[in-house]
Amino acid sequence: MRYVDNKAEDVKIAYIGGGSRGWAWGLMSDLAMAGDMSGEICLYDIDHEAAKANETIGNMYNSLPETLSKWSYKASKTIGEALTGADFVVISILPGTFDEMESDVHSPEEYGIYQSVGDTTGPGGVVRAMRTLPMFEEIAENIKKYSPDAWVINYTNPMTLCVKTLYRVFPEIKAFGCCHEVFGTQDILAKMASVLFGEEIKRKDIKVNPIGVNHFTWLTKATYRNIDLFPYYRQFCEKYKDGCTEYVDPEWLKGFHGNAHKVKIDLFRRFGYIAAAGDRHLAEFCEGKWYLESPERVESMLFHLTPVWSRKDELKERLQKSKRLLSGEEELKIKKTGEEGVKQMRAILGLGDFVTNVNLPNRGQIPNLPLGAVVETNASFTSGTVTPVVAGEIPKEIYPLISRICTQQEVLSDAIAERNIDKIFEVFANDPLVTCSLCEAKELFNKMVNNTKAYLTDYNLGG
Amino acid sequence: MRYVDNKAEDVKIAYIGGGSRGWAWGLMSDLAMAGDMSGEICLYDIDHEAAKANETIGNMYNSLPETLSKWSYKASKTIGEALTGADFVVISILPGTFDEMESDVHSPEEYGIYQSVGDTTGPGGVVRAMRTLPMFEEIAENIKKYSPDAWVINYTNPMTLCVKTLYRVFPEIKAFGCCHEVFGTQDILAKMASVLFGEEIKRKDIKVNPIGVNHFTWLTKATYRNIDLFPYYRQFCEKYKDGCTEYVDPEWLKGFHGNAHKVKIDLFRRFGYIAAAGDRHLAEFCEGKWYLESPERVESMLFHLTPVWSRKDELKERLQKSKRLLSGEEELKIKKTGEEGVKQMRAILGLGDFVTNVNLPNRGQIPNLPLGAVVETNASFTSGTVTPVVAGEIPKEIYPLISRICTQQEVLSDAIAERNIDKIFEVFANDPLVTCSLCEAKELFNKMVNNTKAYLTDYNLGG
Amino acid sequence: MRYVDNKAEDVKIAYIGGGSRGWAWGLMSDLAMAGDMSGEICLYDIDHEAAKANETIGNMYNSLPETLSKWSYKASKTIGEALTGADFVVISILPGTFDEMESDVHSPEEYGIYQSVGDTTGPGGVVRAMRTLPMFEEIAENIKKYSPDAWVINYTNPMTLCVKTLYRVFPEIKAFGCCHEVFGTQDILAKMASVLFGEEIKRKDIKVNPIGVNHFTWLTKATYRNIDLFPYYRQFCEKYKDGCTEYVDPEWLKGFHGNAHKVKIDLFRRFGYIAAAGDRHLAEFCEGKWYLESPERVESMLFHLTPVWSRKDELKERLQKSKRLLSGEEELKIKKTGEEGVKQMRAILGLGDFVTNVNLPNRGQIPNLPLGAVVETNASFTSGTVTPVVAGEIPKEIYPLISRICTQQEVLSDAIAERNIDKIFEVFANDPLVTCSLCEAKELFNKMVNNTKAYLTDYNLGG
Amino acid sequence: MRYVDNKAEDVKIAYIGGGSRGWAWGLMSDLAMAGDMSGEICLYDIDHEAAKANETIGNMYNSLPETLSKWSYKASKTIGEALTGADFVVISILPGTFDEMESDVHSPEEYGIYQSVGDTTGPGGVVRAMRTLPMFEEIAENIKKYSPDAWVINYTNPMTLCVKTLYRVFPEIKAFGCCHEVFGTQDILAKMASVLFGEEIKRKDIKVNPIGVNHFTWLTKATYRNIDLFPYYRQFCEKYKDGCTEYVDPEWLKGFHGNAHKVKIDLFRRFGYIAAAGDRHLAEFCEGKWYLESPERVESMLFHLTPVWSRKDELKERLQKSKRLLSGEEELKIKKTGEEGVKQMRAILGLGDFVTNVNLPNRGQIPNLPLGAVVETNASFTSGTVTPVVAGEIPKEIYPLISRICTQQEVLSDAIAERNIDKIFEVFANDPLVTCSLCEAKELFNKMVNNTKAYLTDYNLGG
Repeated sequence: MRYVDNKAEDVKIAYIGGGSRGWAWGLMSDLAMAGDMSGEICLYDIDHEAAKANETIGNMYNSLPETLSKWSYKASKTIGEALTGADFVVISILPGTFDEMESDVHSPEEYGIYQSVGDTTGPGGVVRAMRTLPMFEEIAENIKKYSPDAWVINYTNPMTLCVKTLYRVFPEIKAFGCCHEVFGTQDILAKMASVLFGEEIKRKDIKVNPIGVNHFTWLTKATYRNIDLFPYYRQFCEKYKDGCTEYVDPEWLKGFHGNAHKVKIDLFRRFGYIAAAGDRHLAEFCEGKWYLESPERVESMLFHLTPVWSRKDELKERLQKSKRLLSGEEELKIKKTGEEGVKQMRAILGLGDFVTNVNLPNRGQIPNLPLGAVVETNASFTSGTVTPVVAGEIPKEIYPLISRICTQQEVLSDAIAERNIDKIFEVFANDPLVTCSLCEAKELFNKMVNNTKAYLTDYNLGG
Repeated sequence: MRYVDNKAEDVKIAYIGGGSRGWAWGLMSDLAMAGDMSGEICLYDIDHEAAKANETIGNMYNSLPETLSKWSYKASKTIGEALTGADFVVISILPGTFDEMESDVHSPEEYGIYQSVGDTTGPGGVVRAMRTLPMFEEIAENIKKYSPDAWVINYTNPMTLCVKTLYRVFPEIKAFGCCHEVFGTQDILAKMASVLFGEEIKRKDIKVNPIGVNHFTWLTKATYRNIDLFPYYRQFCEKYKDGCTEYVDPEWLKGFHGNAHKVKIDLFRRFGYIAAAGDRHLAEFCEGKWYLESPERVESMLFHLTPVWSRKDELKERLQKSKRLLSGEEELKIKKTGEEGVKQMRAILGLGDFVTNVNLPNRGQIPNLPLGAVVETNASFTSGTVTPVVAGEIPKEIYPLISRICTQQEVLSDAIAERNIDKIFEVFANDPLVTCSLCEAKELFNKMVNNTKAYLTDYNLGG
Repeated sequence: MRYVDNKAEDVKIAYIGGGSRGWAWGLMSDLAMAGDMSGEICLYDIDHEAAKANETIGNMYNSLPETLSKWSYKASKTIGEALTGADFVVISILPGTFDEMESDVHSPEEYGIYQSVGDTTGPGGVVRAMRTLPMFEEIAENIKKYSPDAWVINYTNPMTLCVKTLYRVFPEIKAFGCCHEVFGTQDILAKMASVLFGEEIKRKDIKVNPIGVNHFTWLTKATYRNIDLFPYYRQFCEKYKDGCTEYVDPEWLKGFHGNAHKVKIDLFRRFGYIAAAGDRHLAEFCEGKWYLESPERVESMLFHLTPVWSRKDELKERLQKSKRLLSGEEELKIKKTGEEGVKQMRAILGLGDFVTNVNLPNRGQIPNLPLGAVVETNASFTSGTVTPVVAGEIPKEIYPLISRICTQQEVLSDAIAERNIDKIFEVFANDPLVTCSLCEAKELFNKMVNNTKAYLTDYNLGG
Repeated sequence: MRYVDNKAEDVKIAYIGGGSRGWAWGLMSDLAMAGDMSGEICLYDIDHEAAKANETIGNMYNSLPETLSKWSYKASKTIGEALTGADFVVISILPGTFDEMESDVHSPEEYGIYQSVGDTTGPGGVVRAMRTLPMFEEIAENIKKYSPDAWVINYTNPMTLCVKTLYRVFPEIKAFGCCHEVFGTQDILAKMASVLFGEEIKRKDIKVNPIGVNHFTWLTKATYRNIDLFPYYRQFCEKYKDGCTEYVDPEWLKGFHGNAHKVKIDLFRRFGYIAAAGDRHLAEFCEGKWYLESPERVESMLFHLTPVWSRKDELKERLQKSKRLLSGEEELKIKKTGEEGVKQMRAILGLGDFVTNVNLPNRGQIPNLPLGAVVETNASFTSGTVTPVVAGEIPKEIYPLISRICTQQEVLSDAIAERNIDKIFEVFANDPLVTCSLCEAKELFNKMVNNTKAYLTDYNLGG
């Protein structure tokens, strides 16, 4: 890498999971629009053909007229090849297939346990972690070996445990985890403020203090200019206590990701702080009987369960799109994602500071969560540096909710590191969503493990 | 108070709740046998007649031949009179009547929520705290006013919150909370060790490191002489995984307090540390679906739900006994309790050091629980001093279980201090035993509050 | 205050010490150049005539052609008038006169104690704190009364103790302390990097992690782009171990503030971290025998003692200048200061985020200094928010040096709050610069107190 | 080891430094009087002949009529032989000879630096640590290899650093450090209380809360029965502000160890807490100009510098005594030492609990000193367990004094572990006693290192 006229050239990015349809194209778009960076992206994927396809698609961006910056894409045959010499490593993988995810999400339904996402927490999150973390151990070992100085950006879920595993295996790693869930809440605040102050206010103008763990992040402060938004949000929540559909696209509302912020609003009214993730995620960290008791309850809370068949359908659609793009049947377009990965890279390269929320091991940014646990707070991104800001103590009212999740994840990290099935089960059994009896919990766990055993070869599963 | 020949004379003890039948007589017995202390006990009770009766009974002890130490008992008309000049204050009150307790314990059963005790945690514990803590605020104010230098020993439940309230209202108070639940587990270890080592080993020879909150205390270390008992306890738990009835009086086992340690053994097998309270208490701090799912589950775990009618029956029996004692129909007998209150007083007076478990605000004895939260650990009792020992961090495996309870109690303490019904409800709703839906939880809470409203006059209960 | 087209209008700034010649004019310049802010500055000073003079001068800026932003200056008769309605409060006062400072700085010389500045630490700093902190108590009380929501920026020394006092008296205050000393070290690094990388690098491109207390701040990290500057600085320090005069104006070097960074370089070579303040300040926090043993030692370390007569001369010159400006004899010129006060105000108003070093109470930004002690680290400035970043633990090697200073200042804060002369003396006696015997220290302290007693009327000075 | 009728038989003790004349005999006496313990002591010493002599002397104790308990003494040829199978390890060695100590203590005098002991802190302590800690590394390695489960009691100075080294090399070690210095202060308090209360009060009846580091330990609480002794000690210190010779043997006062507690009293009057070590030790941790400025100052403070020739003379005398004992010329007598080593062993074996002060790594017993630093506080000794009590935070007033020492020792531990001469020097230069210039400090350090280089073969000393 070198700097020429305030531009960073020859930047090398290794992309683990680089065969992805969707995520990868978003990153390609964002990189194409980063005018002061250029270089090479090495795509590594266990599905090498998919990586090859993305190599072709990626290089097609260079010919688009709007492209500000050219990048050379290359599918790497080995992870070592991809990582060697990398300045940045991006990790975005799907652990297993959607068949495994189908088991994660839907098996618990037989026991009255409903999950709106099923990839982070709850029974699905636990079993997904079981197959993901061994992969992250291997990735961390490879980074240690091939690119110990690279900056590592993770997008894979379960976010907290993936980042934790990277640091557990290679403590000197310069890794952080990115997630856009907080942005959505900033958007709501921006819309609220736009109405209030009669001017168009953007997400980035809403400043917040996020605190918690990924997908269960809360805001203890929210400001616009020198104005505290909490009193306004309180009024907003009273007004929209039955859900806010006003700022919401009615089509989106009907879709599986759509929601009317009713869970978020209810949590504010109950606990006094702003829950800052989509309702589908928030609901999964609460007691199972609160918001996910039954499909009817979910409906009445104006959000949706995301069935895995919908993900399968989407994937099929994206595979088709990939083909169309490759064949030229569909025209490639640059579409910025709103993700901040590229902005973060630029900051680290010294091309523009900013502060945003990320997932990092706790060094004291949240003094009342365990040191070393991966937490989500703001961090200052600048030249060669990502430093968390002091988010402060989690307020008493929401502390039992958040610390329970955080400390359960700490046990799960250990348990998976030890490949200790019994210990993993105890985390499973103590999860807020596991509302069945202990005996049924055991039965369910065994089923879910058995369903996904093709990806659990590292564990001694008995029989 | 003065010392004469290594005896403490003219010791003044104020007993709040001094009209009690049962507890008071136990203390009287223990004091009669404390050969190196004598003085005066002022009995204060809102039921002054009961206190008067105990004045008479207390003074009868002085004539018993075994009595080593004479004490003058006096029923005080006002709390100020009782407290003025006190060296020690003992607090053991019943907040409300057993009718209120009946609501605490049994109302939740309509919602499928079973409580084996119902006085510390769970729905019953929350509502009991609502009526108890305002009383403790008043007691603390009076101690501040009348006997700020006295040592205060609390026996009332919910223990943690009662002690917390004393310190909240009067931070300089010299108070601690005593509970015998850990002793029972030491007894089991003593019996186990007796068999192992072929000699008679007593509870006091088993040394332990208790850690946690009252009634949900765990042992991270247990020794006999220079021998670590954990490996032996592990074998014990495997052997008795279906419950240990061997060391147990079969009659006791049938009674409401009887149990075969099966919950305790199961918790060890699941989490690797020794839960150290009676199974009836332990079960209440765990997820409702683990051990208290149904009366059948309780039965299969070999413990019992304690119905409040049995407490009412016992009380009637004790009232009869009181009459018989007063009339001379029944002979008064000294019967040492096994409680350590008098031993603690003696240590504080400089008459014999010892280390035992008590409930105190956290000053660092458990570094991973919040400072100021009331926790149960060992403390060193010596001249004018009660100092917690460093119990250490709660091990990761059991940390989510214990910290959840501890931090919920912290919110409850605030919520009751603020008389904030909504905030109290959130603690209620997030309790491990509240396994019904959010909506039912609200309904249940309102019912329980309404049932006991005669003792909740401090709160704005609306309509 | 209101926002019009992304500009903040009607901003009200109260300036305590607003009669200053020099500092005030710098602020006026910076404000004139802040194109997106305008409003009113109320100048309050115990010397009302001086404030009146500055009112006139301030308003003259509005007619300068380069002025981007117009401000209305007004001398306030009372502090209440100045503070009422203020959005920002700037505090920059001289506690006492230069006669008192003369005693602070030069009296200790009779005891072989040399101070290069004498306003922050050492014997001079202690006695200066004695007369300054009571003034700050009064200022804090007034802010609490008249403008509790204002943002307060302090520039007065002793910085740490002034900020501490503001928070002690009014814990909800939104105050921070600004100092440019770290900038000087960033400048050196920028010059070093410019030579290394063959391009012009500016201070603001050098990113650092400052840690410590004001004027004794250290850098544990320094980067340019994605490059760690520590290895380069190590080479730099070896090369310039006898001082670096290369980048230095020879005239400046001869002046009282001039220095060849030899102390800074020596500290790096001894302790491995970058001391980040001027050598004159750094030397004062070290053992008296290290760099300030004698005028000869100072000379050999290539820095200077600043005699107070030079300050008096400067003041005379500035008074003359004030007259010339008022009379029009001298032309008023806008001269940006390089201070960041106005930039900080803009960030707080939502007009541009940035991260810079400030003095704030420790909320965990430095986990191994006491909570509540005022420390200097980076903080994120954004809409309505100043949040420290996690600077991390002070490294072991420099921890004894910094923690000693920090904790002595904590005692001094208490001692002055209590007006406890004996306790103040113990801080004095334990100061690294107080190298005389205990008995001489007492004598010196009494002399210095006596010399400045006109400003110590709050204390019981005996006799 | 086995237990027979509440006695511990076949206890094996390994004594490292077992050739000592003096210390060893004291331990022999104490063991002979421990009626409920018996077994074997393996004496290991680099001077094997000395160990052999003590083997003979030790076994002679068994024939004394007062002997309650018989022990078999054996000189071990190798440390492995001594350690294998040991239940306890006692370490009491002299690192180097008194010639090295002569350099430690007296070389600094040429630079105006006087040390009253010179074995713990100050220039002498630093250089002594340089030769001692490598020996402790080796001892720790051997314990890890030969007796990892043994309890290890250290008596060697510098105490803090020796215990630190044991834990650094073998973190699972069960080691603690014992020192009787606190006892002396308890004795003074006992004498004071005896006069006050008109009865004979013994040291063990005075209960204290020690806090700090070895030889610089302070009491934040002192009680007799339920009585706070602080108000009385305050009066005592006012009365005896010129020194207290009243309770002191005039002969002892003249001897090198004699002192009139004047330093201790002065420290109380200055700082408000009870310094709890002999004045000779206390003075060495304070600024050099406070109490050790000159021999005259020492004399006026009524304590003494201990010249090393006096230690040499004593040693000669003890060597003579050894010969006389061996030849039967002098009769062997049991003389209990007042040390608590044997009492601690008994407690660990389950033969009698108690609480006393020891040196242990900080696990939170002093929350405002670094975790892992070796600190001195009370600990509870019981069956198989040594647990520190929560001593609490060091009070603000004395925190700068104690934390400076503690954190300097932490750096010294690292520096010696790294054999980093430059880093060691920085600790030396920043020691409170090193009152000479930096340049002289370097000269002195080099001299002292050179004088003792025969014992510093592990270090790269250059030239």
